[in-house]
Amino acid sequence: MNDTIEFRSDNSAGCAPEILAAIAAANSGTALAYGADDWTAALHERVAEVFECPHVAVFPVASGTAANALSLATLCPPWGSVLCHETAHVLRSECGATSMFSGGGVIRGLPGENSLLDPDALEQAFAATRWNDPHDSQPSVLSLTCPTDFGTIYDATQVTELARLARSRGMRVHLDGARIANALAQLGCSPAELTWKAGVDILSLGATKNGVLSTDAIVCFDPALVEQLTYRLKRAGHVSSKMRFQSVQIDAYLRDGLWLDLAGRANAAMERLAVGITGLGVELLADPPVNMAFARVDASVADRLEAAGLQFYRMGGPGVIRLVTNFATTVADIDAALGHLSAALR
Amino acid sequence: MNDTIEFRSDNSAGCAPEILAAIAAANSGTALAYGADDWTAALHERVAEVFECPHVAVFPVASGTAANALSLATLCPPWGSVLCHETAHVLRSECGATSMFSGGGVIRGLPGENSLLDPDALEQAFAATRWNDPHDSQPSVLSLTCPTDFGTIYDATQVTELARLARSRGMRVHLDGARIANALAQLGCSPAELTWKAGVDILSLGATKNGVLSTDAIVCFDPALVEQLTYRLKRAGHVSSKMRFQSVQIDAYLRDGLWLDLAGRANAAMERLAVGITGLGVELLADPPVNMAFARVDASVADRLEAAGLQFYRMGGPGVIRLVTNFATTVADIDAALGHLSAALR
Amino acid sequence: MNDTIEFRSDNSAGCAPEILAAIAAANSGTALAYGADDWTAALHERVAEVFECPHVAVFPVASGTAANALSLATLCPPWGSVLCHETAHVLRSECGATSMFSGGGVIRGLPGENSLLDPDALEQAFAATRWNDPHDSQPSVLSLTCPTDFGTIYDATQVTELARLARSRGMRVHLDGARIANALAQLGCSPAELTWKAGVDILSLGATKNGVLSTDAIVCFDPALVEQLTYRLKRAGHVSSKMRFQSVQIDAYLRDGLWLDLAGRANAAMERLAVGITGLGVELLADPPVNMAFARVDASVADRLEAAGLQFYRMGGPGVIRLVTNFATTVADIDAALGHLSAALR
Amino acid sequence: MNDTIEFRSDNSAGCAPEILAAIAAANSGTALAYGADDWTAALHERVAEVFECPHVAVFPVASGTAANALSLATLCPPWGSVLCHETAHVLRSECGATSMFSGGGVIRGLPGENSLLDPDALEQAFAATRWNDPHDSQPSVLSLTCPTDFGTIYDATQVTELARLARSRGMRVHLDGARIANALAQLGCSPAELTWKAGVDILSLGATKNGVLSTDAIVCFDPALVEQLTYRLKRAGHVSSKMRFQSVQIDAYLRDGLWLDLAGRANAAMERLAVGITGLGVELLADPPVNMAFARVDASVADRLEAAGLQFYRMGGPGVIRLVTNFATTVADIDAALGHLSAALR
Repeated sequence: MNDTIEFRSDNSAGCAPEILAAIAAANSGTALAYGADDWTAALHERVAEVFECPHVAVFPVASGTAANALSLATLCPPWGSVLCHETAHVLRSECGATSMFSGGGVIRGLPGENSLLDPDALEQAFAATRWNDPHDSQPSVLSLTCPTDFGTIYDATQVTELARLARSRGMRVHLDGARIANALAQLGCSPAELTWKAGVDILSLGATKNGVLSTDAIVCFDPALVEQLTYRLKRAGHVSSKMRFQSVQIDAYLRDGLWLDLAGRANAAMERLAVGITGLGVELLADPPVNMAFARVDASVADRLEAAGLQFYRMGGPGVIRLVTNFATTVADIDAALGHLSAALR
Repeated sequence: MNDTIEFRSDNSAGCAPEILAAIAAANSGTALAYGADDWTAALHERVAEVFECPHVAVFPVASGTAANALSLATLCPPWGSVLCHETAHVLRSECGATSMFSGGGVIRGLPGENSLLDPDALEQAFAATRWNDPHDSQPSVLSLTCPTDFGTIYDATQVTELARLARSRGMRVHLDGARIANALAQLGCSPAELTWKAGVDILSLGATKNGVLSTDAIVCFDPALVEQLTYRLKRAGHVSSKMRFQSVQIDAYLRDGLWLDLAGRANAAMERLAVGITGLGVELLADPPVNMAFARVDASVADRLEAAGLQFYRMGGPGVIRLVTNFATTVADIDAALGHLSAALR
Repeated sequence: MNDTIEFRSDNSAGCAPEILAAIAAANSGTALAYGADDWTAALHERVAEVFECPHVAVFPVASGTAANALSLATLCPPWGSVLCHETAHVLRSECGATSMFSGGGVIRGLPGENSLLDPDALEQAFAATRWNDPHDSQPSVLSLTCPTDFGTIYDATQVTELARLARSRGMRVHLDGARIANALAQLGCSPAELTWKAGVDILSLGATKNGVLSTDAIVCFDPALVEQLTYRLKRAGHVSSKMRFQSVQIDAYLRDGLWLDLAGRANAAMERLAVGITGLGVELLADPPVNMAFARVDASVADRLEAAGLQFYRMGGPGVIRLVTNFATTVADIDAALGHLSAALR
Repeated sequence: MNDTIEFRSDNSAGCAPEILAAIAAANSGTALAYGADDWTAALHERVAEVFECPHVAVFPVASGTAANALSLATLCPPWGSVLCHETAHVLRSECGATSMFSGGGVIRGLPGENSLLDPDALEQAFAATRWNDPHDSQPSVLSLTCPTDFGTIYDATQVTELARLARSRGMRVHLDGARIANALAQLGCSPAELTWKAGVDILSLGATKNGVLSTDAIVCFDPALVEQLTYRLKRAGHVSSKMRFQSVQIDAYLRDGLWLDLAGRANAAMERLAVGITGLGVELLADPPVNMAFARVDASVADRLEAAGLQFYRMGGPGVIRLVTNFATTVADIDAALGHLSAALR
């Protein structure tokens, strides 16, 4: 479009051509509304296969906030609380959605390095809880975010250990996977290993940040929760009437590993960028395992980068900029960006 | 696709090619997420022009239920009540969405011929209200549906009179326009005349039933409510991250009268169908002004119609079937359907 | 106090001396707050004995609305609906409390003679329900009121039959017993027979209308619901810190049949009044089984009664007045009232 | 009752005789229910006089949690957030009540020494807020607690400064005064100076912890909020039917300075206790301005104190016990407690 280079957010990218093609292909004939169509049936089979879980259920929804808040409302009683990292999107960036959809549930943020929870922090939260005292909103759900909003990830062993701890207190486990494909592409483990085999009850399956047009999805591994989700989504207005056009997006996304390919491109772009940035002597707050990095640069350098056409946010602390690559970021983008950085640093 | 003829619902139809083209055209370059993009800005201008209302605000959402329930929650205090016809979609078919989003508001159905409210029914409801008595949930919003779920319509004069009555009691006015284009195409009045000029505060602008892919919209005529809607939609998960792909659908829908063209085709198909049906001696419960009719046929006739490939619902009472045309219904479809009906009646 | 005679409401009466004495007696020493005291333990034993139900749980709350709405919220999922008579207090006079506490549940009123539901009305509501269709808020709870707000009652056989029907559709059963003592005093059946033996899950045990100072109670017959009630009441602010002073009121009320004595006095006063009224040729809308009657009198007669000091409401329709006796109504009150009526009719 | 000495909570004490006498005196004649009685009218006059505020409104409610959560729900939009200290009762001990009553509002705890907020912490919270960004729940209410749950207090100047800061961002101000009388008795300022003159919109007026039987109250200084409170309380079941018996408790409590006398006794008892404790060489975590202290003692000492009949909680950290005096604590109680402590330390 112009000479800008997009590092603001993977939400700023467009849509992968495979997704548009799938939508166009579904515009054929008539179909029952609200999910009683063949494309949606095919999506269920796709998800069951990709997640190696025959009894899984999948619900396309309009946003990651909807996926998270409706999942948490399903897992958390109205008088319960959700534990998560203090930087989690569900706590910091969803405008109280979970409290509304759950009918009054609350979210408590816990500390942890690099936006990651560790077992000690969880144990300390448990120790500080007045269990079975109705004055104290009882911890009912553990919500993990992977990758985190800081671009860091849990591996399957870490998810398993945290989920085990939560389950030992009767809690359920939710995984906010707004960028889950980026984590899977990096970890190399199977979708099952990072989710239900690790103890996750419901996954928010992000897709729009990684090339999908207009839908994310709730992936529910516990059949006992499916009826509840059905009604919760309906009354939330998150059951699309022409559901086929949502279902085919997720289906195409998961088909033949497209999701991992797209995420792998974003990760690889970030890896090239990170190597280049540190090679220029600029500090990254953490080594970026996926497609997001935070770099420490002077305000004057940031100004020059912006003037050169780099688009990014100044966030992550004073003197820090956030850089996010996406499925469409090219080698040329990265090299141009590094050229601008090199010039800006002089 | 096959030899079936679709009369189940306008939701069963696919998507108009203009909408798909608009989506594809918007897949160009990067753009800020959540509505801070040029395509969404253009949508605002389009809506202002089409509704002749410079201060209007528009919010694409994922479903008609979302549009209705979030609009009503904006207009109705948590302790108030919404008055509507006892057959209204907001009361009968949204699984309590308005009560949830409003934090406890209630909906009261009022009687009326042909699914239409009349001033007398409204006055009687007012007379039965214990005004200013906190035991009694206070009527706070009038919600009209046009066309109704029975396929009947209010004209601008009727909306104006009902809205005037409601406003005389301090109530706000909502219009559920899930099929508003069908009403406008039939009435010939301007969008402004049927909405804000008639006293409507917020319109649920239906689009998916009339050829759009995945979005309806809230159209708000009262600037004082815009901030509230912004937050309510966010926490409901109804702010699409790649908003441009939602915005261009509504923009294309309203451009050059496409919405009225599409609705006009559905209405004309129904008119041809209705003339044919009555010509065959079959009774219609009401003369269909738009794209929906209810016909009284024996169960054996209904069976034969289904066997011949007609798709419809047995609803509207015993011995009644509902027939709905859509933007893609052809003259050939109608004539084939009438042929089947003629055969089935023999 | 003066020469007025109180027929407005049993809520207008004061407090029975036994209740005040119990409160004063409990003001001795210190006690743990929030119900962890000996008086509250004694209340549990009292309720278990009076209701012949060892596993019953009892929760004093500040009002009948709290008892009803918190009970219904416990029985009804947020996306479900409560069925009740269209005149029920929970529907007509609690300002949406159940929708709020349930997180969006809705209440549907059904018709029925004399404010009573009958099996046919219930079956018709079932037939009109689109079961398992998430568009349609699913009937989840049957709420019966006994005595009704019209002063009529169900006997144990009727409650049993209605509850059986509800249970056959997987619904739970709530009994609004704001004046349950008046029904029991009239019916002569045991508290168990009219409640859990008839299929009732939770009873709203009214007490303030019948001589108690400041508390009604939730009586829960299903142990599986107790934990939920504990948390729901806490976050609703309905767990009194000095719970002993609430518990002793209900304990004294149920001790040695006081509740039935008090209710019996109110019923007897009404019986004497009703006999007198009809003896004077005035029509009662229904024969009053408990302590409430509706009489048809000319406005001029009503005016003269008010001028003579009778206190009552003009409600129940045009030309109708409502008369309610209470535990403190005396024979002298009744005879004086009848004297005034006789004079007013002349 | 026995030889125990009560330091667990001021909630564990009984009721002042003046309160019981007022209740008994109100049990005279009949009165309209739900607050339309003369006693409640008198309460309004009393509160207006005591708070020097003619337009004040007062609502008796069943608990401090009800007072807090309904006040906050009135001040905070469903999508807003309440800022308070991280140890505040509204955040830590009300089981999500505010999130439920507000329809999804959230509470954010801020740090501060001795459970007190200071202007710097508030400014930092403001700086970390993404104002006008709907992702971020917008700070809408400042809730101060005075005395805090740690027994510390703000003076009128501090409340004024914090309220001024909040108001500069468009926020409203709530004061949780569960023990407000203890603060006033210590500070010597007028009720007006610590509340509306300092910028407080609504006060939760605690009373049960200080000798009242069964009611706290919401005191609203902003007439524009009164209608909303009326409906919110009704649907929360917090409008007592026999309101006179609640109103006279608060009226008697505020009459002739009874509330300050009772609180003064508790404060004086604590002062004697604190002097004695430190005289015995035991450390208090803070100098207790009102009726609550936290003492650092070995577990063995705590064991011996319990064995000697002292009742208290082990809370406030490891090796810390909390001691709370109340209006009925006597000099003999204190001296006996100090004797036991002296013995336990040997």
